[in-house]
Amino acid sequence: MTPSEPTLAELGERHLLARIRERVPAGEGVRLGIGDDAAVVEVQHLAVITTDSLVEGVHFRRVQAPARLVGRKALSVNLSDVAATGGVARYAVVSLCLPSDLPVDWVDSLFDGLLERAAESGVSLVGGNVSRTPETIVVDVTVLGDTQRPITRSGARPGDIVVVTGSLGAAAVGLELLDQGARLGEDGELVATGIWTESSADALTTCLRAQLDPRPPLALARAVADQDLAVAAIDLSDGLSSDLAVMCRQSGVGARLEASSLPVSPAVASLERARRGDPLARALDGGEDYQLLLAVDRGRFAELAELSGVWGVPVTAIGEFVEGAPVVTLKYASGERELVPHGHDHFPHRGDHAGA
Amino acid sequence: MTPSEPTLAELGERHLLARIRERVPAGEGVRLGIGDDAAVVEVQHLAVITTDSLVEGVHFRRVQAPARLVGRKALSVNLSDVAATGGVARYAVVSLCLPSDLPVDWVDSLFDGLLERAAESGVSLVGGNVSRTPETIVVDVTVLGDTQRPITRSGARPGDIVVVTGSLGAAAVGLELLDQGARLGEDGELVATGIWTESSADALTTCLRAQLDPRPPLALARAVADQDLAVAAIDLSDGLSSDLAVMCRQSGVGARLEASSLPVSPAVASLERARRGDPLARALDGGEDYQLLLAVDRGRFAELAELSGVWGVPVTAIGEFVEGAPVVTLKYASGERELVPHGHDHFPHRGDHAGA
Repeated sequence: MTPSEPTLAELGERHLLARIRERVPAGEGVRLGIGDDAAVVEVQHLAVITTDSLVEGVHFRRVQAPARLVGRKALSVNLSDVAATGGVARYAVVSLCLPSDLPVDWVDSLFDGLLERAAESGVSLVGGNVSRTPETIVVDVTVLGDTQRPITRSGARPGDIVVVTGSLGAAAVGLELLDQGARLGEDGELVATGIWTESSADALTTCLRAQLDPRPPLALARAVADQDLAVAAIDLSDGLSSDLAVMCRQSGVGARLEASSLPVSPAVASLERARRGDPLARALDGGEDYQLLLAVDRGRFAELAELSGVWGVPVTAIGEFVEGAPVVTLKYASGERELVPHGHDHFPHRGDHAGA
Repeated sequence: MTPSEPTLAELGERHLLARIRERVPAGEGVRLGIGDDAAVVEVQHLAVITTDSLVEGVHFRRVQAPARLVGRKALSVNLSDVAATGGVARYAVVSLCLPSDLPVDWVDSLFDGLLERAAESGVSLVGGNVSRTPETIVVDVTVLGDTQRPITRSGARPGDIVVVTGSLGAAAVGLELLDQGARLGEDGELVATGIWTESSADALTTCLRAQLDPRPPLALARAVADQDLAVAAIDLSDGLSSDLAVMCRQSGVGARLEASSLPVSPAVASLERARRGDPLARALDGGEDYQLLLAVDRGRFAELAELSGVWGVPVTAIGEFVEGAPVVTLKYASGERELVPHGHDHFPHRGDHAGA
């Protein structure tokens, strides 16, 4: 550790908290912000609340993920959950578990990302907690918002259209690229191509950004909620095959997808072509896209497509919900097969690949 | 690991989440609870939100703290923060980081405690998150409540009385007793006296319970808020010397305490007498009492004393706030000295003992 990189142990808790507090701007609706026992904030009658954490060694590695992007993502994964419930995120609290030999610079960069992402999304950081941890960094964010009209996972009906926003598969490929030595810098710029050549630079950048700095379609989600355009919604965090299985189970319906309709990320298609991989499998099973999966009434898809143009976020009809058991089938030109959920499981069970 | 103790890796994430979901009762005001992207709950216009975590190896050790009591405490430390802000806790979300070799029984017992404490305090568990962690358990709880009239740390004025609820020092002594081999069982009963003899059983039980199962004075706090009886409040988590220093700094006042007035826990007095220790130091610097430190207008202390009788929680006037620098002095029969904050710091700084 050079003298220019003081650690948390050298700074001390009080100075760390003061340093954080100084950087947090006053926010709209915040009656009592950082620095008291609890925060007091104005909300509407129906509050939305969700929590999600990034754990070092599980969700990110310090050598692979710039701290600023860890901060951005820690907030974004929660914004995605609020959006999928038809809510608007307004406030966040952050609970940090930090090892005492962590450089202060790392925490400063984490807050660069958190505060920047908060400002972009109209969220005020109103409180939090810092604790020492033996070695593993944990960044736990809770977001509070409000909603006029909640959207659940359980409202899909036979005949509704299965819709996804954005494109699929890039975040999962980005995770592999990190293991192959590709890297982004603090500003999201490509700084290493790893085992890939410069000719793939654009696709690498796209996939790495999808993994390290996901951008859930917040404005589109808000418009969808305002106009009551979805009867069910879930965010795509575990992978389409898993998340759609959850929606089907909770709605008591099945679904039939058209393989040819899936909006595979062009960057994924290009990289998988180069290595003779399977882009469709990435779109179906790759997690962390943080796009939305919606159930939309057939008669209202045109309105949704119009919103898509307004907000610059693609929406794609990929199939329909059907009566019967909560099973998803996938139609190819050559036939049809059952889609088995292959998404992420933190504690994988022998022979059990269903997401939760 | 015996066959009767399956681990999380053997159970799988989906089954773990289903197991948790089944146990969580429906709650009042909960429009959308566990099992969706985010929870949707009814709140009043002014919401109170706070987060706090218990980290294994820092806040508890598995061999010293029954999981059920870890669950109770994880919620209680947050209830204390909400109470100190004049709020009423209503909902909680829980973010768990768990190693995959953790016995499922441990998680079940944790939820026994969380749900029991939630029921006692009128709080509904509405959501959460489970993540794998390399080895350290982290239990992070965020509590959402509401308030009519927030109480801050910064409202103390010269002439106001310094008041503490309950008695002081037992939780800090309880922590030492754990290191000396004293133990509670899952039900809070004394199961080992460690280096102490049976004759100290009552005092050991009191101190261990204060450490492992703190009970913030929630009902009294609510009444204080309803009747607007405190001009400032902070919960005693880092220790009186530290927490009072924070209130003085944030209020821009000093304070003068009477040593003879401090409500030292009788259990602490008894154990410290036995080992020729310093009970007063425990009351001043011992953390985690989760009682309230209040600034009360001199003319309203009688009303507070009456509430104390109603709710069965002692309140003690221990000194007064004074004009001038944010310094606390302590008066003894023999003279007066400055009280230097000696409370908890997660990242202790050389020569810097002020809490934050």
